[in-house]
Amino acid sequence: MPIASEAATSLAAASLPELLVQTQTRFTPLLQDFLARHQGHDERLNAAIDYAMANGGKRVRPALAWGACLSVGGSWQAAESAALSVECIHGYSLVHDDLPCMDDDNLRRGQPTCHRQFDEATALLAGDALQALAFCALSDGLVDAPNADAARVSSSAHALIAAEQTRALAQAARDMVYGQRLDLAAEGQSITVDALSQIHRYKTGALIRAAVRLGALAGNASEAQLAALDHYADALGLAFQVHDDVLDVIGDTATLGKQSGADAAHAKATYPALLGLGAAQALARQLTDDALAALAPLGEPAEPLRTLANYLLARDH
Amino acid sequence: MPIASEAATSLAAASLPELLVQTQTRFTPLLQDFLARHQGHDERLNAAIDYAMANGGKRVRPALAWGACLSVGGSWQAAESAALSVECIHGYSLVHDDLPCMDDDNLRRGQPTCHRQFDEATALLAGDALQALAFCALSDGLVDAPNADAARVSSSAHALIAAEQTRALAQAARDMVYGQRLDLAAEGQSITVDALSQIHRYKTGALIRAAVRLGALAGNASEAQLAALDHYADALGLAFQVHDDVLDVIGDTATLGKQSGADAAHAKATYPALLGLGAAQALARQLTDDALAALAPLGEPAEPLRTLANYLLARDH
Repeated sequence: MPIASEAATSLAAASLPELLVQTQTRFTPLLQDFLARHQGHDERLNAAIDYAMANGGKRVRPALAWGACLSVGGSWQAAESAALSVECIHGYSLVHDDLPCMDDDNLRRGQPTCHRQFDEATALLAGDALQALAFCALSDGLVDAPNADAARVSSSAHALIAAEQTRALAQAARDMVYGQRLDLAAEGQSITVDALSQIHRYKTGALIRAAVRLGALAGNASEAQLAALDHYADALGLAFQVHDDVLDVIGDTATLGKQSGADAAHAKATYPALLGLGAAQALARQLTDDALAALAPLGEPAEPLRTLANYLLARDH
Repeated sequence: MPIASEAATSLAAASLPELLVQTQTRFTPLLQDFLARHQGHDERLNAAIDYAMANGGKRVRPALAWGACLSVGGSWQAAESAALSVECIHGYSLVHDDLPCMDDDNLRRGQPTCHRQFDEATALLAGDALQALAFCALSDGLVDAPNADAARVSSSAHALIAAEQTRALAQAARDMVYGQRLDLAAEGQSITVDALSQIHRYKTGALIRAAVRLGALAGNASEAQLAALDHYADALGLAFQVHDDVLDVIGDTATLGKQSGADAAHAKATYPALLGLGAAQALARQLTDDALAALAPLGEPAEPLRTLANYLLARDH
């Protein structure tokens, strides 16, 4: 029944915020062009990198980069390298987190994880390459001929932005690793809500903040705008994680694309386990309200970021 | 017998080129300060990162960065971030290359490898963090307060250099991963000398070229100087690898700090195996001569790079 199925797809798409729809439309060709330009002399590694990045999820981080850039008056094009770079870091972190010596997961968004689809060495290298590619993305936009490795950077203004972006992304990439290590160390331990929030601020929050900051920098944000957007990103990142924990309790495996109840099975601390389900849901709502309040100074151009925050809290996968 | 032992140490130090002596003296406190500034909230990961970077080797890549900067009239200080960043990438690549799913090595420079000293997850994360820290290093130098994550970059001229350096380092980091994958894929295969050289150009040559390029950029090198230094680095990188293969055949385990004959045991293609020992030694000499010839336009300030090239070919470990 192709017609019914198309209608269902349109309906699902219509419920997505415009920012996510536009992001997904724009991001796919951008990513394909970028990955093709950076392919190396090994087909298996090229394929593993493509695989890791194609199993795409919602592209929340590129959407945040673009939304932040638009919210300060920047263009879609200005934040392309920001969108690519944060998604490459996200992709690398998922591939490494899934490895046998880490979370040892077989499924990611309903597909075999990278090391299951290929092999452990290839997955490790694909992750390593993706971290490097994130920083390639930030500097590709600076040269007229991104295919030429030795092409020179000519615009100081763009270089200044890229240097700030590199700094923010490198710090986030560093912090994420500490978050993953804290998360592993906390398995089976009894920890406080504050300790859990610290883990998440590092493990997932750092990159969400970087996505927003890189986009804002691309749009030439003022200091006040950067501060407001950072507050937004910090609250949103935590809200996102609290809601993720809630979904792990109330969601079902088919919708999530991963095993529901996986956190409990791994003896991982979660907000519902520490606070109770109702209080965890209320916390996610309160953090989302904080995020929305932070955007007040940005006015109408921040509307896509508001819609995105509300959508992320209402999502069921 | 402390006096005899000190005398022996001095003698060994005296035989080192001045560039390596100065590099080792300058690099250690620089690295310690850098790592201390970037420590995160997990002692075990901090310790693993320190361990990976402390087991130092000769610091050839920082020496190349500094030598290149000096060769174009730049200062030691200008290339500090270049020296740090290339050594962080080198350190990360060794930790990941030693992992069980890769080369599965127990010893590195006579010490337990990082995953043997700690554990596999911690070693994987230490490597991941070191790749991020390499890019932190390139942007730390741009701000007045490197301890403050959100400190702003103010100098466009320095940002332009950092953006070029980021681009060169990210490309090298990407290429190295392909080199490691090609190397793994070639194990037990019969390959040509050209294919072997391609592996090495990616696996080790890319970072040696980046070290020289980052240093030259730090010293505001002209296009002609960049081209000459790139030629030097390309030839030197290959010479270094050919000589390494030769040492694996003729060296002994105690001097090398790793198992001699390890390449043959892993069924890895080597220059001596493909060309014969004498021809491999001659190739290393010829490549070193190429590297020296490339430096001619740079005159006297390139003398430290010449001495280094000759030293690397004469080394027995």
